[in-house]
This record gives sequence, C-alpha cells and structure tokens, in this order.
Amino acid sequence: MFTYQTRVKLHDTDAAGLLFYSSIFNIIHDAYEAFMDSHDLNIGKILKEKIYMLPIVRAEADYKLKQTVGDEMTIILTCEKVGKSSFTINYKILNSENEIACTAKTVNVVLEYNTKEITAIPQKLREALISL
Amino acid sequence: MFTYQTRVKLHDTDAAGLLFYSSIFNIIHDAYEAFMDSHDLNIGKILKEKIYMLPIVRAEADYKLKQTVGDEMTIILTCEKVGKSSFTINYKILNSENEIACTAKTVNVVLEYNTKEITAIPQKLREALISL
Amino acid sequence: MFTYQTRVKLHDTDAAGLLFYSSIFNIIHDAYEAFMDSHDLNIGKILKEKIYMLPIVRAEADYKLKQTVGDEMTIILTCEKVGKSSFTINYKILNSENEIACTAKTVNVVLEYNTKEITAIPQKLREALISL
Amino acid sequence: MFTYQTRVKLHDTDAAGLLFYSSIFNIIHDAYEAFMDSHDLNIGKILKEKIYMLPIVRAEADYKLKQTVGDEMTIILTCEKVGKSSFTINYKILNSENEIACTAKTVNVVLEYNTKEITAIPQKLREALISL
Repeated sequence: MFTYQTRVKLHDTDAAGLLFYSSIFNIIHDAYEAFMDSHDLNIGKILKEKIYMLPIVRAEADYKLKQTVGDEMTIILTCEKVGKSSFTINYKILNSENEIACTAKTVNVVLEYNTKEITAIPQKLREALISL
Repeated sequence: MFTYQTRVKLHDTDAAGLLFYSSIFNIIHDAYEAFMDSHDLNIGKILKEKIYMLPIVRAEADYKLKQTVGDEMTIILTCEKVGKSSFTINYKILNSENEIACTAKTVNVVLEYNTKEITAIPQKLREALISL
Repeated sequence: MFTYQTRVKLHDTDAAGLLFYSSIFNIIHDAYEAFMDSHDLNIGKILKEKIYMLPIVRAEADYKLKQTVGDEMTIILTCEKVGKSSFTINYKILNSENEIACTAKTVNVVLEYNTKEITAIPQKLREALISL
Repeated sequence: MFTYQTRVKLHDTDAAGLLFYSSIFNIIHDAYEAFMDSHDLNIGKILKEKIYMLPIVRAEADYKLKQTVGDEMTIILTCEKVGKSSFTINYKILNSENEIACTAKTVNVVLEYNTKEITAIPQKLREALISL
C-alpha cells in the first residue's frame, strides 16, 4: 500500500465547476510516479537509462462523488496483479471526509527499450509492486 | 456514427516520446463536444442554460498501438447504450493506416442542474444519441 | 516570500523529452493556489463565495535551463506590485542545484463577481500579497 | 500570415467558468504545429530526425476578453522577428465577433540535436517563417 496526498488544482477542473474526468488520470499517475520514486525507480531515470519502458495499455476510472478545486485527496495505491510482464494497480481516491470519491485502475506492460518487445518485469520493480 | 479528425499535438505527448495516456480522454471529449455541437447541443450553451448537467461517471481506454506527435487520428463515435438517464459512448481511434490505435468508452448520467438529482435524458439529446 | 516544492511530472513533459512550455503555467498556478491557501484564501472557497474573481490578464515565462520528468523544483513567489485592483507576482523556479531554471510572472485583476467590474483588492488578500 | 481555427474545449476551461490561462499556450502551440506542418515541417518528423530542436525560451500572453467552452477562436500567426538562430511569433486570438480576445508571443531558439548548441535556423524553416 502506498498513500499520496494532493489537492484538486484549478487546472484540474472545468467550466462545469468540478474535476474534469481526464484530470484524475494525471493525478493518479503523479501518485504512481511518487510510489516509483519511493522505491528508487524514478521515471525520469528509467527513461534516461533506456533499458525498458512501461507503457500503460489499459486505464479506467469510476467517478462516485464530485470533487472541486481545493478539495483534499488521499490516493491509495494497491497492486491487484503482478504478472510475468504486466501489472495492474488500483487507485482509491478518498476525499477529506474519507469517502471514496473515485476509483481507478491502470495496467502497464514492460517493454525492452530497443526492441519494444514484451519482457519480464525487472526484479527491483517486481519487489516494489509486491510491497504494494 | 460520428467521425472526428485530429492530430496528436505536442502537448498530448510525454517524455517517453508517445501520446500520454490521459491525453486520449481529452481528445475523445473533444470529439464528443464536436458531436454534441453538430446536434445543436453545444456544451457551453448547456452549461449556461443551467437546466441539466452531464457528468461522466465511468471512463476507460485500451491502448493498442503507439501514437506520437503529428500522427493523424480518426475518432469514430458510436452509442453503445441509451438508458433512461445515462448513456454509453464507444470511441474507436484509427491511425493514418486505418488501424485501431486505441478504443475508449465513457458513461454519462443526466442530472438536473439545481437539485443534482438523476433525471431522464432530454429528448433532443436522446435523438442525437440514437443517431450515433 | 512563499516557497513551494514540487517535481516535474510525466504529464508536464512532451515528446522532446523536456518540460512542455505551457506546463510551467500550471505549476506556478499550483504554487499560487498553495500560497493563497496558506492565507486562508482557498481558491475553491473564493469561487463558491461569488464575491470576487481574480482573472489573470497577463502571463509570461522565460525558460533558462532544461527540466525533465522527476526533476525537483523549488518555486519562490514574490510580489512585484500590489496596485489598487491588480497585483503582479514573480515566480523563480530553482532546480535541485539551486540554479534558476525558469522565471515567470502573472498579473491578476480583481473583479466583482456579479458585475464583472474592476474593484479594489480585498483587505485580506492585500495583506497576504504584501507579506510576499 | 497563417490562420488556424479552433474552439475552446471543456478541458481548456476551469471552475471559474472560463478558459484557464495556461490553455492558451497549448492552443497557440497547436496553431504553430499546424503552421509548421503546412510547410512540411511536421514537429513529429523533426523530433524523429534528431538534427535540431526548437525549444521555446520565452512565452507571454495578454488576456483581453473572456472566452469559454464552445467559443470559436481564430488564431493569426505573424512572425515578428527572424534572427540568426531564434525567431519570434506573434499570435492574435480573435473571437467569433472578430474581437481580439487574447494576444500572445513565443520565442524559439534552434539547437543542434546532439550538442544542444545554438545553431542557425535551417533554410526551409527560415523560408516558412519569412512567409508568415
């Protein structure tokens, strides 16, 4: 389990006055980057090393409660599945009253940087994911 | 069926060199806004009228082929389901070689503007959706 | 002076591998929202109260050093000018080596919510700005 | 002179109901990419060729009239200056009533891809800029 705290920013909202639906995918990715970073798996470093890539092949979100600018969010990451070369992370987004405002899910696959072929999850990343 | 043409913009991409996964949700919403507009259901006008709101309650996407800046996209909207007070739109994103680069789905519900209660899909919107 | 710490997120970058130029305007606005919040001037609350609005009428940025995903940023806000009904905030963005990676500036005006007429800066906001 | 037509999208707006200030920098960059493309200088192709890069070193915008979702925008690009290794583009954003809603400016420099050293504007790009 990994927990990330943030707030809804003005640029996350739209003219309907609420969080725009695509913004949640930016926000949960921020949480994922923080999780990776906490395991010495900085995304910038991974990109520079050019050993493997981690593209997202599926994403989904369910919006349950309205959220607007300034609202606190607690994002809880858990790992639903660690396969041979792909992994699924679940995100629970809680509001300031600890209610589930949104749930989301991403599926990443691991590709060799040069060949773009599917490859096994590197050991260090596997350990980080199992710790979730 | 409604078709929308666009290109991957630089701001849709990320440092991995490809379309960032959340950008597809911006792009399909652009297509949805164009569809609504083509039926005299301009989103800006709907917001100004303050009669009903159309929040997205679920969104999902499957990323099948890589897309990068400058790539042409054809987005095809079809309506999977028109319920009493919610509707599901499917999006097929084709690249310049007519391959399916991505598929996506959104579910909207209709709320009365003032009460925020679920209400029936307005007739004009229902007709637009059935035409898809 | 107000200081805000963040990191370049993947969604702030583009396919050239670096921070996309418009992202800096999101990031400094995040810093501005945090500053406002620290003075009990939460932007969400201001929008809900419908007493005044604070549109940005001018923005500028100078990009001096490249920044990419995962890079730490320290953003320092200072107030260049507090006028009768407008204010100018300067932003200095430092990288992890304390070098100036970017500078930016925003000018906001104060409008009465209902009439959209220019009005005097509210006292509480004026005090917050003078403290910068 | 190069003209680009678009509309304010929902994701360009914020909870204040208007175009969010950073969005204008995405939108004028879309116009710039369309301009480049019209001169066979597709940004994606330039990035793939790895001969030169065109980072923005300065950007500014003045917001004159409010714009909101669904509003039509006509963006007119003119070239203010073509130097030895940098160029300045001015953007005039007109609303549907042909009023200037916003003006903006970007300054790009040309860097050799490998050395990241400042280099002369390539001839084809120079000709495209002079045509503006």
